[in-house]
Amino acid sequence: MEQVSYTLDASEQPTHWYNIVADLPTPPPPPLHPATQQPVGPDDLAALFPPELIAQEVSGERYIEIPDAVREVYAQYRPSPLIRARRWEEKLGTSARIYVKYEGVSPAGSHKTNTSVPQVYYNALNGVTRLTTETGAGQWGTALAYACSLFGLGCEVWQVGASFDSKPQRRTLIEVFGGTVHRSPSRMTEAGKAFAEDHPGSLGIAISEAVELAAQAPEAKYALGSVLNHVLLHQTVIGEEAVRQLAKAGESGADLVVGCAGGGSNLAGLAFPFLREKLAGNQSPRLLAVEPSSCPTLTRGEYRYDFGDTAGLTPLMKMYTLGHDFVPSPIHAGGLRYHGMAPLISHVVHEGLMEATALHQNECFAAAIEFARTQGIVPAPESSHALAQVRREALAAAETGAEPVIVVGLSGHGLLELGAYDSYLSGHLEDDPLSEDAVAAAMARLPQIG
Amino acid sequence: MEQVSYTLDASEQPTHWYNIVADLPTPPPPPLHPATQQPVGPDDLAALFPPELIAQEVSGERYIEIPDAVREVYAQYRPSPLIRARRWEEKLGTSARIYVKYEGVSPAGSHKTNTSVPQVYYNALNGVTRLTTETGAGQWGTALAYACSLFGLGCEVWQVGASFDSKPQRRTLIEVFGGTVHRSPSRMTEAGKAFAEDHPGSLGIAISEAVELAAQAPEAKYALGSVLNHVLLHQTVIGEEAVRQLAKAGESGADLVVGCAGGGSNLAGLAFPFLREKLAGNQSPRLLAVEPSSCPTLTRGEYRYDFGDTAGLTPLMKMYTLGHDFVPSPIHAGGLRYHGMAPLISHVVHEGLMEATALHQNECFAAAIEFARTQGIVPAPESSHALAQVRREALAAAETGAEPVIVVGLSGHGLLELGAYDSYLSGHLEDDPLSEDAVAAAMARLPQIG
Repeated sequence: MEQVSYTLDASEQPTHWYNIVADLPTPPPPPLHPATQQPVGPDDLAALFPPELIAQEVSGERYIEIPDAVREVYAQYRPSPLIRARRWEEKLGTSARIYVKYEGVSPAGSHKTNTSVPQVYYNALNGVTRLTTETGAGQWGTALAYACSLFGLGCEVWQVGASFDSKPQRRTLIEVFGGTVHRSPSRMTEAGKAFAEDHPGSLGIAISEAVELAAQAPEAKYALGSVLNHVLLHQTVIGEEAVRQLAKAGESGADLVVGCAGGGSNLAGLAFPFLREKLAGNQSPRLLAVEPSSCPTLTRGEYRYDFGDTAGLTPLMKMYTLGHDFVPSPIHAGGLRYHGMAPLISHVVHEGLMEATALHQNECFAAAIEFARTQGIVPAPESSHALAQVRREALAAAETGAEPVIVVGLSGHGLLELGAYDSYLSGHLEDDPLSEDAVAAAMARLPQIG
Repeated sequence: MEQVSYTLDASEQPTHWYNIVADLPTPPPPPLHPATQQPVGPDDLAALFPPELIAQEVSGERYIEIPDAVREVYAQYRPSPLIRARRWEEKLGTSARIYVKYEGVSPAGSHKTNTSVPQVYYNALNGVTRLTTETGAGQWGTALAYACSLFGLGCEVWQVGASFDSKPQRRTLIEVFGGTVHRSPSRMTEAGKAFAEDHPGSLGIAISEAVELAAQAPEAKYALGSVLNHVLLHQTVIGEEAVRQLAKAGESGADLVVGCAGGGSNLAGLAFPFLREKLAGNQSPRLLAVEPSSCPTLTRGEYRYDFGDTAGLTPLMKMYTLGHDFVPSPIHAGGLRYHGMAPLISHVVHEGLMEATALHQNECFAAAIEFARTQGIVPAPESSHALAQVRREALAAAETGAEPVIVVGLSGHGLLELGAYDSYLSGHLEDDPLSEDAVAAAMARLPQIG
């Protein structure tokens, strides 16, 4: 019997996160203070984050040790499996070898616990008793609530209005893990009050609300689920495992590494350890980001300084952006509806070290259902973007007889997104076109900086 | 760092299912033909099941080999993890060592794929192109639809009306896996037409409908998700793994093995390999079935011959029963709402080899939430019954300082049952009392047989 799922022995599991900054050919541009337009220093971030996370945010060290308390929680669900998708390969008739790195086995059902656990741990070390955050699809809010329950912190989540309205199960799950959920825009913040109460919301607005509350409350801090360097750092546990698991599967390396990209952390977590191998000349994989056509930050945005949130409370970050007040259409992959992109992902794309492409959601759901029926895993709508692109690559390989080794990030399961699947199966899903006018208008409103 | 999750190497994984019948001190009473009241022969079952399953149903062989094609599917998600619930132990302040055997990692999110895969495999071998079945909570329907998608069979599922109405996500999941769902009672069968269209339904009615359709259609057969000997047989892969994993955890054996009991297959699958060890004198665990107070088959039912379905289409089986037309109250643990109990579980309980107890649902949800917040797994409402009983046992151990090794079956996750959790969290859940009158009336209607 052929092995299809690869794990790691206790002695093989990563003990450190990997910091890509140490190996980049050119340094990434620093974040700027919105008032001075000078690089932000650690003090500028101290109201929002504990010192260990600030140190990680600006670190140039190649490896940063994972604290024992964090590794103990990781050990409950990690290593996540690397699965050879043989049944899907057969269905596609491809000569490609497809390996799926599956993060849906985590307590929150996605990769997000990889960073929520260390973030809460460092906050707890520093006496913080309450964390605020935003959530889009709900995966990040779930992950933070779970981590807070482990370390005894309170957790308040501003959930994007459209998601709050359409997915009551997600709110319940956050509550099961002990968190409190507010619909965003809420009446609790100035940032929220700037919008009508029934506004569908956006990640940018929800971030503004959570940041505003944390900045005001001395016992509270803020936690971000993607975009920032320290978040991407924590996610590298994914790729560190995958590099080792792929070797255990007998492969000399990956030819293609694919992930969906919303804020960028899931993709970075998988891809950066492979990028290290590429920069060191050990492997030569193409790295590929897949984003939704309705929010095509990397493929249609501009690489420039912009805010991470709608209200302009965050530092200015150099990144691909559609404009910080651009509100993407309410596609089902809520985790991909973000106007910007992690500065580190933006940098490696800008430097030509990573490619990007954009897909419409019907193609993604079709691939997801084919995957579910063969492999028995219902993908998150976000992850389905990566699978749909792999499907294209695998069919192309079938044409030429090429045998690429493809590693794809399956960032989470879609069991709380079955309403979206129902829309697809009943033929009600639209491939929402990007509003060029909306992007142009949002870009025109940007400050000229950097 | 301490290990908390135990797996098995490929060479340690079970190659055979275990048949408890070979080791029982007394043989279990045979099923009877309703017309002749004589033991049913293989021919009587041929309209519903393929020959391999009929052979397994009546087999006295101790071990039955798992076909390679089935082991290949098992390998996608098995061995399921055996998890030392250290964080929950700490929360409970117990000296008990609690090991959780977690079946929620399967494609359907429950133990049900352990039998759906071999059932579909054997049907496919025999040229069957369509399977019919019932589903209560929806887990069995999901598992059968997934297995049918793997082997290319059509799958029609009659879902208990109350569950169909309250859980549209479950229907969608079955459809994602390629199945077709009918609300039961439906207008497609005589068994269904005997009830009003808006009747909340029951497992017994849904079974009648699926059996009726399969018996009429030459290309179709019927698949049952619990109760029967061959179903329990397939589930023993759970316990076979757990016995080995517990040894890898350094334990000499279990002191207590606990599972929830609806039809009985999840409990039997975990417990029967431990019962073998007990009968052989290798270990001496207590075996304990936990059922809902609103459907207390083992603790309040009578041990006698009864039908498995409401319409009386199945053979008569000697089992604990509340009467085959008893309709339990619509508690959230839909998988436990069954009037009867697997004949093999009934037999070992009657022989004093296994104990049983019954719990109300609020206590179960409270335990489930405590478990979720510590261990990061949201249990199925069914499984929460087993956890609540473990909680009692662990707190008792804390009083005495005893250090029992407890193995508990966590039959599935509850991510599609968050509506039930919402009811609990918002204080709207009632501990529905058992209607003694309804049971007495159902029992009075039973035929006197055996």
